[in-house]
Formats: sequence, C-alpha cells, structure tokens
Amino acid sequence: MVGMEPWECWEWRLLRAATELRGHGFQTCVLTNTWVDDTPWRSLTAALQEQLRSHFRLALESCRIGAATPDPAAFSRALEALRARPQEVIFLGELEENVVRARELGMATVLVRDAESALRDLQEITGIQLQVGAEALPEPIAPEEVAHGYVNIRPGVRLHFAELGRGPALCLCHGFPESWLAWRFQMLELARAGFRVIALEMKGYGESSAPSDIWEYSQEQICKDFITFLDKLGIPQVILVGHDWGGAMAWNVALFYPERLRGVAVLNTPFRPPDPDSDVLEKLGRIPEFEYQLYFQEPGVAEAELEKDIGRTLKILIRSSSPEDRLPFDLNFHRVRERGGLLVGFPEDPPVSRLLPPAVLHYYIQQFQKSGFRGPLNWYRNMRENWSWALSARGRTIPIPALMVTAGRDPVLKPGLSKGMERWIPRLQRGHIEDCGHWTQLERPRELNGILLQWLRQLPPPPFPANSKL
Amino acid sequence: MVGMEPWECWEWRLLRAATELRGHGFQTCVLTNTWVDDTPWRSLTAALQEQLRSHFRLALESCRIGAATPDPAAFSRALEALRARPQEVIFLGELEENVVRARELGMATVLVRDAESALRDLQEITGIQLQVGAEALPEPIAPEEVAHGYVNIRPGVRLHFAELGRGPALCLCHGFPESWLAWRFQMLELARAGFRVIALEMKGYGESSAPSDIWEYSQEQICKDFITFLDKLGIPQVILVGHDWGGAMAWNVALFYPERLRGVAVLNTPFRPPDPDSDVLEKLGRIPEFEYQLYFQEPGVAEAELEKDIGRTLKILIRSSSPEDRLPFDLNFHRVRERGGLLVGFPEDPPVSRLLPPAVLHYYIQQFQKSGFRGPLNWYRNMRENWSWALSARGRTIPIPALMVTAGRDPVLKPGLSKGMERWIPRLQRGHIEDCGHWTQLERPRELNGILLQWLRQLPPPPFPANSKL
Repeated sequence: MVGMEPWECWEWRLLRAATELRGHGFQTCVLTNTWVDDTPWRSLTAALQEQLRSHFRLALESCRIGAATPDPAAFSRALEALRARPQEVIFLGELEENVVRARELGMATVLVRDAESALRDLQEITGIQLQVGAEALPEPIAPEEVAHGYVNIRPGVRLHFAELGRGPALCLCHGFPESWLAWRFQMLELARAGFRVIALEMKGYGESSAPSDIWEYSQEQICKDFITFLDKLGIPQVILVGHDWGGAMAWNVALFYPERLRGVAVLNTPFRPPDPDSDVLEKLGRIPEFEYQLYFQEPGVAEAELEKDIGRTLKILIRSSSPEDRLPFDLNFHRVRERGGLLVGFPEDPPVSRLLPPAVLHYYIQQFQKSGFRGPLNWYRNMRENWSWALSARGRTIPIPALMVTAGRDPVLKPGLSKGMERWIPRLQRGHIEDCGHWTQLERPRELNGILLQWLRQLPPPPFPANSKL
Repeated sequence: MVGMEPWECWEWRLLRAATELRGHGFQTCVLTNTWVDDTPWRSLTAALQEQLRSHFRLALESCRIGAATPDPAAFSRALEALRARPQEVIFLGELEENVVRARELGMATVLVRDAESALRDLQEITGIQLQVGAEALPEPIAPEEVAHGYVNIRPGVRLHFAELGRGPALCLCHGFPESWLAWRFQMLELARAGFRVIALEMKGYGESSAPSDIWEYSQEQICKDFITFLDKLGIPQVILVGHDWGGAMAWNVALFYPERLRGVAVLNTPFRPPDPDSDVLEKLGRIPEFEYQLYFQEPGVAEAELEKDIGRTLKILIRSSSPEDRLPFDLNFHRVRERGGLLVGFPEDPPVSRLLPPAVLHYYIQQFQKSGFRGPLNWYRNMRENWSWALSARGRTIPIPALMVTAGRDPVLKPGLSKGMERWIPRLQRGHIEDCGHWTQLERPRELNGILLQWLRQLPPPPFPANSKL
C-alpha cells in the first residue's frame, strides 16, 4: 500500500509509480484532506478527483471518512479500507507531521521533497525498478475496468463495445485478428484528454455477433452496420480511428458517410481508390506479400489452421518487431498455399509475445473461443464486392480532416503503399513510427498516443455546438 | 409503409404520425434525395439525418441507393427494402411528379400541401385515428432500441444501464418497484435535446446485481456505488434525475457528493433533513400512509406476497390516477400489517394498467423474475442507517441547481411534504402536475418532459469546458 497526499500526486511520475506498483500487486490508496465542494467551481474539483481516483485502487477523502491526517483516525480508516497492518504499508507524504505519525504507527515512510528522490526511496523500499521515465508505457486498462455496451443492430446482429470517458465521441476499430482490447494503451489517455472513447469489438469477434454469411462482412454491410450503431446510440458524428481492417472500414466510412465523421485516422492501412481496369483478386495475386489473403479465400481452410490452437496462433501472429521478440524465423506471407498454411513450421508452444502478456492473451483467447475465426476471415472474402462498391464512389475524394500513421516495419502494409494518398485526401496529415511492426497500438503506444493526441488537439471544432437543439 | 420526402418531414406532426403508424405495425420508410456531404458543414447534415432516421424504420438516401425520385428505380429500391408490393404502400410526397409516379406504380398516395389535410388523408386511408396533437404522448423507446451498458462496481456488484444520445451526461434513477424502462417516454426527448441519457437499472433490479445483504442497499452504499459507476465510466459530473427511491438517492448524492452533480432534479420524493431527536422508525409509525414501510421491514414477508404473481403485483401497484384506471378500490397504505398484506382483496387478474401496456409489463415481469423483490425491498430496510448517515451531514445545505417536481395525487409522497424545502435548497425550482399520481414519468410524460427541459435549458454551464485538458 502506498498513501499519498493530493499535492504531490500531481507530479505525474509519482502517479505513474502508483499505477505501476498497483500493476505489481500492491494495494494503492490515496488519502486526501478535502472538503465537500458545493460551490459553482465544483466541476473542477470533480474532474481533479476523478483523475486522481483513476490512478489508485482506493481514494479516501477526509470529508467522507470523517477524519483528516495527521489524526490517527484517518490512518486507521485507511488501514481498515486496505485491510492491512501498518507493517505492510509504505506511506508517502509531503508534510513532515504526517510522515512522522505514519512512522510512529509502524509504517515504512517516504518524505516527499521532490519526485526524483521520492522515487529513489520508493524503489529502494519496494525493491521494484519503476519505469516512470519518458520511456514508460501508457497506463493500460483491463476489461473489467471499463463499461461494456451492446447495441442490437438488427435481428441476429449485435455489436459489443467498451466505453470510457465523456466529451466528443471517438470510435476505435481494431483489425484482424484482434480485439477491442488492442486499444488498451489508448483508451485511458484518450479519455483523460476529454473524449468519450468507444472501442468496438468488430463484427465476427468475441461478444459481437458472428453471423456465418460471407456478405455480412462486405465493407458495404460493415459500414452500414456501423452507421446503424451510431444511430442507435444517438450519436450523429464521431472521430473514427481504425487499424488494419478497421482502418479499411474507416476509409470507407469517410468516403461513403463523411457527414458522420468529424475526422478519420488510420493506422497502417493505406487508402487507394480501386483500379477499374484490373480485377482485384488477380491484382492481389501479383503482390507476393498479399498471397496469404488468397489462402484465406476458401472457407474452412484457414479456419482449421488458426482455430487449432488459438493461443499458438495469436502468439505467432501478434509479435513485436524487436529482435528480442523474434521467433526462429519470421512470418512469411508469400506462397502460403504452397506451404500448406501460415503457421507451418513454427514451434507448437511459442514463447510469450511481448505484445500479449499472459492476462491479455488469456482474454483474447477467451474472446476467440466464442465464435472462432470464420467471421474474422470473412472480412477477406468480399474482395470483388468491396472493389465494386469502391468503384461506385470513383472520382470522389476524402476532404475531411484525416491522419495516416505508417509503421516502418509492417511486413505487409508497408509505408510505401501510402505514397501519394494526398491526391485523394487533400487534408491528410501524417505520422510515422519507424521502429514498429504491424501491431502499432500495442508495440509503440506512447509514440502512437502522442501522434493521435497532437492530431486530435488541432481538429477543427464542429461548426455547430455538439448539443445544439435542432 | 409510408414514403416521405425530407422537407415535409420536418413538420413535426407528420413525423409523429410516422412514428405512430410504426407503432401500429406499419413498416415506415423515408425516401430522400440527398447528396454525400463532405463539406465543413456536414455535422448539421449528420444531426438532421440522425433525427430523421430515428422516426422511421428505414431511411433511403438517393446518394446511397443510386437513384433519386421520381426515377422509378428509386421506388423499386424502396419496395425491395420494405419487401412490399406497391398495392401495400401509401406514399406521401410534396412534389406532384413523385406522387403521380407512385400512383402509376399502384400505390395509394397523399399529396402533402399542408400537414392538416395530409393527416386527414392519411387517417382516411389507414383507418387509424392519429394522436398527433398537443395531447399526444412523447415518443417512447423500447428496450431493444437503445444501447445497454454494464459496469463492474466491485466483485459481486455490477450495474446495468440503457444509454442514448451524446452531450452532457444525464442520469435517470427509477424507484420502487420499477425499471430503467420507467423513463421510456423521457429518453428520446432528452437525447434529442442534446443530452447523453443514462437510465440506470438500480441495484437489486433486473440485470443489475441483487446481492442479498441488507447493508448493500443503505443510502451510503448505494451512493458510493453510484460514484464508482461514474468513475468507471470516466464521467466527472452529471445531471441527476431521480424518482421515488431514486429521488432519495439523488438528494443524498447532492448532499454528500455535490461536486459530481451539475444539477439535481427529483420527482415526488421530498428532501427533509433528519430529525436528530426522534427515532426514524418510530416517527414512520406515526404517519399512517407510511405504515406499509413497516410491513416491508421483516425480510421474506413482503417478498412472498409481491413475488407470488409478479404481473398482478405490478398491475395493482402501478396504475394511473385517472378514474378509468381505477380498480374496485384504491391501494391502502395504512394498516397493511393488520390486513395481512398490501394486495389483499384485489382481484387475482386485475385489468391492464394504462401505465403498463402489455409489452412493457412483459419486460418489467421478465426483469423482476431475474432476482425478485428482495433487493428492491432492502432499500426500505436501512432506515436507521440512512438516518444516522444523514445526521452526519446535519446543517449542510444543497446549494447546487435543483428541481422538485410534485404530483397532486401521489397518495404517499404528497406535495405538502415538500413544503419549506427552499430553506435547505436555496436555488430550488419547482414543477407541479396536479392531475398525476405516483408514477409521474409514465402518467404525465408530456408535462414532465416540458418541466425537465425548461429546467435543463437554463442550467448554468459548467465554468470549465466539459473536455478541458487537466
């Protein structure tokens, strides 16, 4: 347990330390001397409190527990709430009198004079090397920490989403083969920046419906469902962020339903208008690293391979581009059919992926066990339909605010493919992360969040207030 | 089926007529000649479209179906989408050429010159008397039409809510023995007015958890859970509206957590500070119409009576105050223990209540079947705990914006009980509906919505922007 007082809490490195210790299994509690604020400025108090509370497992306020530090009663309440003995507690405080009292009670203490030395002391007492510098990962969320929503789109189709925050709606759409939890490093930071973050579980995945028909996964149908999703939530306009297939969808929503988007941001997936003169599947066959998509065409084949051992599949597919995370050889997207599968030759029990710590992998597996890979693979099985739908918008541009984030080491969606997108997307802004593979949100969350937030902060506000009366 | 063109749709009586016909089992479709709007003003288009779509089962836009009226292809697409033959269709249009084309195809038609005559024609063709005047009920929502959310509060306690709309968060809290669906006439109007409406299913009810411990339902614990609910959703401040026990909770949140509320509105339930000099249960015993609450104290007793036939219980308890809705005799809240129960003497199969049409009653029953009446009754079983918690805030006022709505015919929470509330709630505003019993949201939704919207529109905005960066 770690006690803290509010003022020093605002040193973000100490807040990060609290979160990190919580991740290491510590019970954390913030103990503040505060008052019930019923003034006209109480919304600031509420916002500060809510931010503070989000960093700790427990938040005890003197005005609600009926005792303020250094009153020993305040310490007793904290111990009760934490179900801890003083000897199990580390107390951090800025006021000497509080630290002295805590020490008298038998707690280990840190007198906070500056963050630097406090962190050093904390590391020494806990024996944990805290990653609180600029290189630290953003704070992740866990599935049970956010709200889960469900929308009935039409009979047989419902979409699941995770929701956090208030303000303008920001929808996050994952790709293949993933989960809404792919955005676990983004949700909290985006919500704290003032957005209502809605991370969709895409059709075919987990708790969203997975109808078996292939046409259900055509881009036209997927986009139509997304519009119905917004209608049923009563949200006229959102900012849409997509990755991989979620990115393809995002570009199509921008093209076919631009009025529903305040802006569109896509990771890895480039936008290309369709080529009317060459059949899309033939064209695909000519790009070696897209050959796996042809392997995915025959219903049942890739399902059998990918569903055989879901954990193995995910551990082989979802890995970072760093050398430490490499398997004996790299995934090869060429000549997959010839080799008889995508995962052929990989170890039966690959080492843990840096991108999927055990609890996250466990959640992914559990979600895939619900309806398997058929739905996810069906996204690939509408190539001609998607092509001809795209052709129906031929000549149209995407003039709304847009962001393209490329990843230097994506073996399939290479940055070069995005060259010249400005021709069709005149207001395109760009971000690039060189040392990053395909799983951008998981591999370089800090860099990605920086790029997203910078773009979001300069988005023009809607010309009409969000809650105008019509 | 009813076709319409966008311009006349904006006549609200025609929109209401469309909704009403839909309620009578008509398939409704709006057919508009529109364009893909990618201009900087597209958010207005999005808001208009979203409002329009919410009135119809289907919305077909020329820019997405590839044909505009009067092109026969547009009519064919509409027939396909509706799976209807022309002879089954009534077409309403403002342009003569469209109406002529529809008639040629075999549809019944109405040429809209003004709403008045169009409605007359529509009534004649359908044989349905449309309630589109000022006396019409607000448009209700059905459970499957909104998003459903779930928040884990702590192990064993999760809260369910229905969600609709975007903008400042507005939480609706129902009373005993009800459902989030008690707000079915409010959700759509409040969402259309620019709010993110969150209708909670209170602890003990339906899809929310119903732990068996009595202390779980003390006001202190209920309010604490509500604050955790907001924390987990990432919403620092809301406008809180409560009815009956939900109203008691709302006053307590205003008293103990004012910083989390932009404003508080309560229906029927008055606010009274606790009397330190007289035991709350003894005091209760001295008010004849509160005697039923003493009957509710003994665990198991009222459960047995109310759970015996849930449909009968709800039909007897939840009725309007209008003479047409009266049972052979009125509910009597006096001497309930003496009589051996609250429902003694009532018919075994009471007639349908005006407030609970069959589909709504069916939903209520289904929700109560999940965990019965123990949780709901436990709200009454913390009288002394609630009293002593309230005493801990003795002398405190509620200076935030507040609204008290009284109902002239509530047999228990009589308007007179709210006299003098201004002493403790200096900024209290009031609304009163004379011809209204206890179930205010269901019995007088139009009047209530008017009162709520008027109060909401003049609420001071928060001094800091909702999405300020901290």
